[in-house]
Amino acid sequence: MAAAYVRPFYKIMRNIYLDHAATTQTDPRVLAAMLPYLKEQFGNADSRYALGRSAAAAVLSARDVIRLLIGGSGGNVYFTSCGSEANSWALKGVCAANFGKKHTIVLSAIEHPSLLRAAEDMAVFGYNTVLVYPDGQGIVTADAVRDALSDDVAFVGVMAANNETGIIQPASQIYEVCRSAGAFYFCDCVQAAGTLDLSSPLGDGMSFSAHKFYGPKGVGGLWLRRNTRIERLVSGGQQEGGMRGGTTFVAGVVGMAEALKIACNDMEAENARVGRLRDLFARRVLSSVRSRLVGSGRRLPSNADIAFSGCRGEQLVISLDMLNVSASTGSACSSGASKPSSVLLAMGMSEEEAASCVRFTFGRENMQRDAETAADRVISAARDLGAHML
Amino acid sequence: MAAAYVRPFYKIMRNIYLDHAATTQTDPRVLAAMLPYLKEQFGNADSRYALGRSAAAAVLSARDVIRLLIGGSGGNVYFTSCGSEANSWALKGVCAANFGKKHTIVLSAIEHPSLLRAAEDMAVFGYNTVLVYPDGQGIVTADAVRDALSDDVAFVGVMAANNETGIIQPASQIYEVCRSAGAFYFCDCVQAAGTLDLSSPLGDGMSFSAHKFYGPKGVGGLWLRRNTRIERLVSGGQQEGGMRGGTTFVAGVVGMAEALKIACNDMEAENARVGRLRDLFARRVLSSVRSRLVGSGRRLPSNADIAFSGCRGEQLVISLDMLNVSASTGSACSSGASKPSSVLLAMGMSEEEAASCVRFTFGRENMQRDAETAADRVISAARDLGAHML
Repeated sequence: MAAAYVRPFYKIMRNIYLDHAATTQTDPRVLAAMLPYLKEQFGNADSRYALGRSAAAAVLSARDVIRLLIGGSGGNVYFTSCGSEANSWALKGVCAANFGKKHTIVLSAIEHPSLLRAAEDMAVFGYNTVLVYPDGQGIVTADAVRDALSDDVAFVGVMAANNETGIIQPASQIYEVCRSAGAFYFCDCVQAAGTLDLSSPLGDGMSFSAHKFYGPKGVGGLWLRRNTRIERLVSGGQQEGGMRGGTTFVAGVVGMAEALKIACNDMEAENARVGRLRDLFARRVLSSVRSRLVGSGRRLPSNADIAFSGCRGEQLVISLDMLNVSASTGSACSSGASKPSSVLLAMGMSEEEAASCVRFTFGRENMQRDAETAADRVISAARDLGAHML
Repeated sequence: MAAAYVRPFYKIMRNIYLDHAATTQTDPRVLAAMLPYLKEQFGNADSRYALGRSAAAAVLSARDVIRLLIGGSGGNVYFTSCGSEANSWALKGVCAANFGKKHTIVLSAIEHPSLLRAAEDMAVFGYNTVLVYPDGQGIVTADAVRDALSDDVAFVGVMAANNETGIIQPASQIYEVCRSAGAFYFCDCVQAAGTLDLSSPLGDGMSFSAHKFYGPKGVGGLWLRRNTRIERLVSGGQQEGGMRGGTTFVAGVVGMAEALKIACNDMEAENARVGRLRDLFARRVLSSVRSRLVGSGRRLPSNADIAFSGCRGEQLVISLDMLNVSASTGSACSSGASKPSSVLLAMGMSEEEAASCVRFTFGRENMQRDAETAADRVISAARDLGAHML
């Protein structure tokens, strides 16, 4: 009975959202930019009458803005429905363009499932995959990538920043290595876009997803260096230069451009602000509970991936949900699976330690008080679950 | 100078939108259902805390509604970003599941580019395509499909209703023929959904797209009979039962379900109403200009695809745009290409006649006066362009 009385108290506590790596709330300015295209400006961007032409103009302008901020003018931006589609397309499309010539895919072991499973999906057509493991700090070195290269490699994929640990990868060095070896290098920038400067190419291909930087869900993109040899994934009409079918989600691409513009304008100040919150939070938790930050090196300013000693991450996430703190074990994409994170195992963690990790990712609407309150709730929940305290 | 004075007069005329086959305006009730998920209910449907669970509940309920109205409980509904993705996935995924076993794709020559080009894309992996031609009325008969079948056929695709002519295809008979032959039959229902009753399966797979029935752009779906052997197109996490990666576009799928519910509730009355407008319009045009309706047989009630004698469709569409009537030559998906419609050529039309066609498709916001006014503007524009009058 006590629980029933306690519940309403928790309910009225303001929710503190610390899972910005999973998704972000669409910025009101972004939604405002989208609304006309969800209402009276509903034309098909491929139609030739006025209603279609104004939609096409909005799409053109969104594409220009995005290409300026991601990848630059040495390539083209193609709109997709999400980061996973962009990743799947890059891998499957580049492999298909090399069918019968090159048969090997090189991926880091900490890539997103959309690349790892895309590679599995290509096995049916005779492609095999070589995994490159990160070091114990979560970094995939350019040397490790070099060791995996051969003349048979059609596609190399190492992300810009990991979605679980937030560790920033040495993409520029890896790009150099791949370029020397004549291998196509793809850099998944889904976690990086809006936080890192991507205006110069990090690879021959880069992917991004609007809902990770306060844009809408349902839209993402792929930047490809000009003259990339790639087959289509989503076939169709003349959209996207004939490279990706489907009626353009005009409101979505307009929203994505607006969101990216805002994120890039505020990037430096916001990264500093969010980094301070993360540091404040992490210091407080780490000084009370026996725990450690996962990995080391340059890390996204939003990310605190913490391994707790003496309690399970899954339990902690559930307790925190009751305390109105939203956090996660590993990525939302794998949360259906109750296995320890493959990213953490790839870094050499034991299954037990991997199962003790919780990812906290800060963002735009978090304030200093949120970081402090969240830390206190984490400490209290961890203590209740029997975590080892300091 | 005269034109400059005349222009404002045209500008103030209310636009009459007669291109509902290209896209439709999102119903305000649909947008209202979507907005919470574009605002405070922004959770990732794969997250386990409260914000994620409420998104997941909305997605679950949308999926149930849609499966009740399209395909039924003998299969599963998978969300995609559009009809083209659903079509591409069905074709490429079913072919990949048959790699090394079956190598032939059978498509009607009047399929949407998303299927025709997907088949071309599979040529690199050794698949070949057999086209089945419609008769002169635009109908792909079950007998014609039967003649194309063999043990080597992995995939058969004949749409429910054509996007240009609106002619309804004998899907049930084709399904019977394919079933007897043990061939997978896919029925593109993008034009049919919201207008025809699809609650029983028309094939082993069916595709649909929200923005064709007053839902948002950026979301569609694929119904697949249970136990369909199919590979993934968009790889990724645990979303869509592990069959389609990417963070779910929650607002989009909620909007699609709402739009489909409205369309199916009003289907009979609205089909009758729209059919009357179409008939009124067509009768008036056909009795003034030497012209004919393209194809014959059962036709979507919204569609009047008209071949004009003595003027080019492209010119007429441009003139009509100046007169604030939105219509199109062929589909928006091919409007980048200035070639005569391949659908019309496949029906045996000459290039000249095919280039004389304009598609008018009526919809929800059209009133009787719109049909009459549009007909008058069409007649006047056709006369100015030198069409043969009656």
